[in-house]
Amino acid sequence: MAKGLTKRSENYSAWYNELVKKADLAENSAVRGCMIIKPHGYAIWEKMQAQLDKMFKETGHYNAYFPIFIPKSFFSKEASHVKEFAKECAIVTHYRLKSDPDGDGVIVDEDAKLEEELIVRPTSETMIWDSYKNWIQSYRDLPILLNQWCNVVRWEMRTRLFLRTTEFLWQEGHTAHATRQEAIDETVQMMNIYAEFVENYMALPVLKGKKSASERFAGAEDTYCIEALMQDGKALQAGTSHFLGQNFAKAFDVKFSDKNNKLEYVWGTSWGVSTRLMGALIMAHSDDEGLILPPRLAPIQVVIVPIFRDEEQLKAISEVANKLTDQLRNKGLTVKYDNRDSFKPGWKFAEYEQKGVPVRIAIGPRDLENGEVELARRDTKEKKTYAISGLSEVIINLMDEIHENIYQRALAFRAQNTTYVDSYDEFKQVLLEKGGFIYAHWDGTETTEQKIKEETKATIRLIPLEKNDEEGTCIYSGEPSQGRVVFAIAY
Amino acid sequence: MAKGLTKRSENYSAWYNELVKKADLAENSAVRGCMIIKPHGYAIWEKMQAQLDKMFKETGHYNAYFPIFIPKSFFSKEASHVKEFAKECAIVTHYRLKSDPDGDGVIVDEDAKLEEELIVRPTSETMIWDSYKNWIQSYRDLPILLNQWCNVVRWEMRTRLFLRTTEFLWQEGHTAHATRQEAIDETVQMMNIYAEFVENYMALPVLKGKKSASERFAGAEDTYCIEALMQDGKALQAGTSHFLGQNFAKAFDVKFSDKNNKLEYVWGTSWGVSTRLMGALIMAHSDDEGLILPPRLAPIQVVIVPIFRDEEQLKAISEVANKLTDQLRNKGLTVKYDNRDSFKPGWKFAEYEQKGVPVRIAIGPRDLENGEVELARRDTKEKKTYAISGLSEVIINLMDEIHENIYQRALAFRAQNTTYVDSYDEFKQVLLEKGGFIYAHWDGTETTEQKIKEETKATIRLIPLEKNDEEGTCIYSGEPSQGRVVFAIAY
Repeated sequence: MAKGLTKRSENYSAWYNELVKKADLAENSAVRGCMIIKPHGYAIWEKMQAQLDKMFKETGHYNAYFPIFIPKSFFSKEASHVKEFAKECAIVTHYRLKSDPDGDGVIVDEDAKLEEELIVRPTSETMIWDSYKNWIQSYRDLPILLNQWCNVVRWEMRTRLFLRTTEFLWQEGHTAHATRQEAIDETVQMMNIYAEFVENYMALPVLKGKKSASERFAGAEDTYCIEALMQDGKALQAGTSHFLGQNFAKAFDVKFSDKNNKLEYVWGTSWGVSTRLMGALIMAHSDDEGLILPPRLAPIQVVIVPIFRDEEQLKAISEVANKLTDQLRNKGLTVKYDNRDSFKPGWKFAEYEQKGVPVRIAIGPRDLENGEVELARRDTKEKKTYAISGLSEVIINLMDEIHENIYQRALAFRAQNTTYVDSYDEFKQVLLEKGGFIYAHWDGTETTEQKIKEETKATIRLIPLEKNDEEGTCIYSGEPSQGRVVFAIAY
Repeated sequence: MAKGLTKRSENYSAWYNELVKKADLAENSAVRGCMIIKPHGYAIWEKMQAQLDKMFKETGHYNAYFPIFIPKSFFSKEASHVKEFAKECAIVTHYRLKSDPDGDGVIVDEDAKLEEELIVRPTSETMIWDSYKNWIQSYRDLPILLNQWCNVVRWEMRTRLFLRTTEFLWQEGHTAHATRQEAIDETVQMMNIYAEFVENYMALPVLKGKKSASERFAGAEDTYCIEALMQDGKALQAGTSHFLGQNFAKAFDVKFSDKNNKLEYVWGTSWGVSTRLMGALIMAHSDDEGLILPPRLAPIQVVIVPIFRDEEQLKAISEVANKLTDQLRNKGLTVKYDNRDSFKPGWKFAEYEQKGVPVRIAIGPRDLENGEVELARRDTKEKKTYAISGLSEVIINLMDEIHENIYQRALAFRAQNTTYVDSYDEFKQVLLEKGGFIYAHWDGTETTEQKIKEETKATIRLIPLEKNDEEGTCIYSGEPSQGRVVFAIAY
């Protein structure tokens, strides 16, 4: 169990890798870079999906499904898109195996070579805009507000569970609009929905902003993003929303006739979050004992562990436990009563601690006599005795309290690790000593951005949306700057 | 709209293809055999998923996710499995494209050839049992009851929307057990859950039984299935549940130590239903005007169409419509109030008829004066006037009534198209004249089964589970038979 988890202060990266495995969230598969998401990990992802899906539908989006394969030629239609994705994609070239004449196994049947190779989708803009061409004729067909939940493949060279995997699960929204402004509004709306989700469900504060040109999505005119800070002082991009302008409409010849019967290219957006959010969730809150889950995404929100020596004691405890379970379930909580006799209470405590269950209740024979239970919070490790009567209200309130506590903890951490600097020396010193988000002036050129990245590994995470009117001089070039941008070393 | 839908009696197959497209359920994509599931079709699939997922979880199953790619060598480990799937799979051989030195586009980079090819999963037994090997040591690790929702690829030569596509969506359950009996019980349980789902949600009666040896899943000891009858007299396999015996445990060396510390191979099952169910749903109930959806799976259960000449009339109608909408939503129904002024009521009627909305309510100014509405049922096309007061109760009850009506209609159709025959001549005549399910005696040999298939295209759909003790003689060979089996021509 908890034994063997490296301390964060010793090796944050090892701590993360071990935690993902020990909390039974995911593991590597026999296929390089592809992960197996285990039931405990997948249950968290399902809760994320359910909430996001609800928010998408409430804002008028519908789900659909497009093919996993994209003809190779589609990629070449949008220049920057093919440049970005061509170098890291899985390519299907054949459609049949045959018995190996020289051995036991099977080999590729060269007679079954595809005329045109198929790419396993790294993202679906090309396939979807090829369809929109047939779906859109007039302004009456707009807007189209679609989303799909699916798997995508990007042939990453260095992979890490959840954070960067060859195959990952995600949702990709793809919308089509009659006007530039409507598409921009959609792009901003989706960034805001992502921020709301990460803050209100993952209990993780985020910064919102725009990417610099070099960090934009391949084929976008503007990329909006949310960025969160991990406990090691590195930033993690948690979601992106792209204003595609008319780029894909032009690449796939998607036009509509407006109210005046004039033909115009359609405006587009795309936006996505992925199982990478799982990595953010794990890294943001957890401690050296294991996972800490925000209550609104915890697959088990409350676990009840009986402490008993014999069947009779168990029976008395179970009566109370089952009643409490019913009360909590009626209030919409997920409760597990772990009455297995094959494991000792101490073992169970350690297991649920490692798996991040927000609230643990222990009930022993003496507790029963006193009409009380012991309640342990995962976030603070605080233990306290509560009367059984009225306990379900206490627990309901605790769910919000724990959410608020870990959110505030993450917010305070971010505040402590946000620094304003006015010189490049200071910039490098902060990066070296504490990392975190650094607000600094930048001259707006790609050259400066590139130099800073090469010399320090820090990148511009975002350009804040709120116009900060404070002018200044670039920390690197000394040239004038219109406002500070946010730098960090990122995952 | 409805214009142009071929009649079922003229050409059932054309009717189906047109209906799928006109009801906006799905369409073919630019990739051969891969479909695009459009929002209306996907919304039905989501309702199917939600209900099935609930039933799986209620019986103790958890969701997980395994990689889309399977190393080629995994396939060779189970002999009948590789034989079945090797001839129809998508093979990834490279992981990078590069600019074409002789042209504009991109070509496969031969320097990025994989050492071992990867197969896009046609089903995941091999990958999952390779994982189970690491997860199972002792009887305490059993049972493992997992399911995954995902996409799979089988390189079908002749494809049809939903019924047979190169890529399709499905769920695949994979369980591991300590005893043979427990695994068989699980297999039967899942067949029963499928039957319950198809009958209680799709409103479609099914037969339950076992497959003959030649129709079994590749690698299974026994395949249980449910079979439904379509309106053209052909059978459709709606779900299968496989008892794998110890085949995959042996292929992947998955053993556990039992309570006596003895090493044993693990027993397995797998079971699945796919987007093929959408095909069954469409074909089972619909008519020449379009789709007929069972109320429990209809994305829109009630549509309200206002009939108005001016803003003032619309305003008065909207007041009543919004109130009714709220009442119905509070009772859990999905309601659409279509107050668009860009389309005429007649156009809307035809659209919702074609899309299969179970109940349509029309409200005009004179209805308002009389305190009534016109209610049209999609299943019977009956129109009736109802008082506005108490209308929500009427509609709630109607949901069950419509479900029951289309279920009974399908059941009566199946009864009319089920025939007992005692000679091969009779068998061939029934096939020719009406099709349907044919109960006939079979000698139990694969030779006879094969001959009948070659001569008539009919296959054994299933061997009924209830031991029917009626002995007889095989309609083909005249040899003794232990009981009747069910033949049909199948999708």
